[in-house]
Amino acid sequence: MTTARLEAFSDGVIAIIVTIMVLELRAPAQPTWPALLKVAPIFISYGLSFLVVAIMWVNHHHLIHAVRKVTARLLWSNLNLLFWMSLIPFVTDFLGKNYRQPVAVSLYSLDLALCGASFWLLRTELVRQDQHDAEPSEYHARIQRKNLLSTLLYLLAAPAAHFSIYASFLIFALIPAMYFLPEKKLVTSADQPIIDR
Amino acid sequence: MTTARLEAFSDGVIAIIVTIMVLELRAPAQPTWPALLKVAPIFISYGLSFLVVAIMWVNHHHLIHAVRKVTARLLWSNLNLLFWMSLIPFVTDFLGKNYRQPVAVSLYSLDLALCGASFWLLRTELVRQDQHDAEPSEYHARIQRKNLLSTLLYLLAAPAAHFSIYASFLIFALIPAMYFLPEKKLVTSADQPIIDR
Amino acid sequence: MTTARLEAFSDGVIAIIVTIMVLELRAPAQPTWPALLKVAPIFISYGLSFLVVAIMWVNHHHLIHAVRKVTARLLWSNLNLLFWMSLIPFVTDFLGKNYRQPVAVSLYSLDLALCGASFWLLRTELVRQDQHDAEPSEYHARIQRKNLLSTLLYLLAAPAAHFSIYASFLIFALIPAMYFLPEKKLVTSADQPIIDR
Amino acid sequence: MTTARLEAFSDGVIAIIVTIMVLELRAPAQPTWPALLKVAPIFISYGLSFLVVAIMWVNHHHLIHAVRKVTARLLWSNLNLLFWMSLIPFVTDFLGKNYRQPVAVSLYSLDLALCGASFWLLRTELVRQDQHDAEPSEYHARIQRKNLLSTLLYLLAAPAAHFSIYASFLIFALIPAMYFLPEKKLVTSADQPIIDR
Repeated sequence: MTTARLEAFSDGVIAIIVTIMVLELRAPAQPTWPALLKVAPIFISYGLSFLVVAIMWVNHHHLIHAVRKVTARLLWSNLNLLFWMSLIPFVTDFLGKNYRQPVAVSLYSLDLALCGASFWLLRTELVRQDQHDAEPSEYHARIQRKNLLSTLLYLLAAPAAHFSIYASFLIFALIPAMYFLPEKKLVTSADQPIIDR
Repeated sequence: MTTARLEAFSDGVIAIIVTIMVLELRAPAQPTWPALLKVAPIFISYGLSFLVVAIMWVNHHHLIHAVRKVTARLLWSNLNLLFWMSLIPFVTDFLGKNYRQPVAVSLYSLDLALCGASFWLLRTELVRQDQHDAEPSEYHARIQRKNLLSTLLYLLAAPAAHFSIYASFLIFALIPAMYFLPEKKLVTSADQPIIDR
Repeated sequence: MTTARLEAFSDGVIAIIVTIMVLELRAPAQPTWPALLKVAPIFISYGLSFLVVAIMWVNHHHLIHAVRKVTARLLWSNLNLLFWMSLIPFVTDFLGKNYRQPVAVSLYSLDLALCGASFWLLRTELVRQDQHDAEPSEYHARIQRKNLLSTLLYLLAAPAAHFSIYASFLIFALIPAMYFLPEKKLVTSADQPIIDR
Repeated sequence: MTTARLEAFSDGVIAIIVTIMVLELRAPAQPTWPALLKVAPIFISYGLSFLVVAIMWVNHHHLIHAVRKVTARLLWSNLNLLFWMSLIPFVTDFLGKNYRQPVAVSLYSLDLALCGASFWLLRTELVRQDQHDAEPSEYHARIQRKNLLSTLLYLLAAPAAHFSIYASFLIFALIPAMYFLPEKKLVTSADQPIIDR
């Protein structure tokens, strides 16, 4: 299998994940502005998940571009990531409908923590492939530190929700912000790639 | 990231948007022609949205073909557009079920206005990339004027619905007509491209 | 736009159409074999539509391969075809739930008639592109006669359902059979193409 | 049709199958951990089907890579496989909701048996194409024996469920394990292909 096919399949799955979430947006029974306002939390959780999945999609591309060889380990690490990502529509729907309930906030946090850990795991295969190369190794280590940080923060957000859901929401806002800013650098690094192959 | 991947991902999302809308078409409980006739507004709003999304898809292609370089700004402007487009199945369903209610007509207008504005924003990045080139700049300016006009018309349709929903429906019919005719020109201009790269 | 992109987008839409139909297959409330048997008509109508869409997909490929140039007319004829195809999950669901009701059988027939007519219309653009070439013209004329025949048969199946739904079902079985057999010839003709470009 | 298009369409359908299954995961009405625990069987059946479809996707790629020529027979054998795969979301949902009921376990087994048989059938076309070549023939025969074994095991799991659903569950766990291990070999054989063309 080439990285092109791996990427095309992953793109397909991610495009579907990001789009079917909208099916959870149920129109209110009464067509009034106040009724629409009550759906706002569902809309906001959809917006947040759209952003999170979009960030993952961009990062996934940068990751796949650094692949030297499609190994079984890489293939299955990628399928593992797609599995946890595929649960995002489910946890998003649950959060939107129960945004005041610690359980829903926790479950959302846990799934995103698992996605973060899966990204970290997927990159270990790249680290292995690039182990004799100083420059990409340093690059991978930097990204993995960030993966680990966001995984830990999401893991923290899960129990935190049982004390204050606002603490968890703060973490949900913080992580995209953290990823969003360095995104620009990552895209620049793809334009003038460190790892050019 | 290449424009090919950006286009493939956007195509995937747009193909899903346009197709999942059909899931909102619920068969009437009673299998009679009069019962089917009652579903007609849902069918008509589906048809309108299919047309609107199809026009956006065609325009999106022309836009992406004029891209010189995939920058972070371009990437995120595109994801912003896809986000507002992804809400079209939701606002379409709401409109179909409540086509006599100003709120539903307004919400539909607002989402399409946001799509129009997102197209305008996305093209500003192209304007930036082509700023030292007279011919494409003139071309971008022409399209952006059209984006702005349709955005303003949709923005107008939102409050108008609270006075007369028929005024809003007229705008909904007018804008596709306006885009549809120049579409031919745009396709011709792609066949004999102004901006040939 | 190239035919490759047109084909990729159409493939995406067709893949979604064929797959989301399965979402209409609702598991019976009671997990018993007799309860499952009652769902059989829904399953059979799904199977029939899968076959019909698969035949359309194969024919669509052969058609696109014969395209010389992506014109606005071609683009919009293709989007018109995709629109009527996108209604197949809806009419299939309606048929499966009301397979004894003439209205459901009629509606199914009408949508497939419109798909057939859209195929015919789409090919008129190819006829136009190939008008100075004797061999492809003869080939297009042959396919269009078949398109017309199946369109007329489906049109006939719509009123026929109000007299005998079995007459309509016979037509539903006949048309795939008619298309299925010559499919082999078409694939062969693509392997040893009449129109080689 | 090229194998690239056949693969892209199959990838599209498989990506949708694997992702829409998540729509069956319905959030519990009450946002509590015990309520979530009750959804666990639905989640587990989703996870199992994700794994099964992922294995099929990987195997499908290896199969398509060995294709010499896209014949009508190959095309329709592939569409036949996609049809039975498209039912996986349905049987998975039914299993998740009724995991203690023999009927649900049987139906799941039967669909996977039909998928296995379809893989076997699809490969017979490759056997035909490679019949004058000793090395690939031996390779195909080896895979087909495995297809046959898993088909028979799934066929066995169907009646077995009526005696003990745990016997069927054991088979469900066994087959992915059996496929998962040799997967590595298959990927290796693609990296250093036996059949290099």
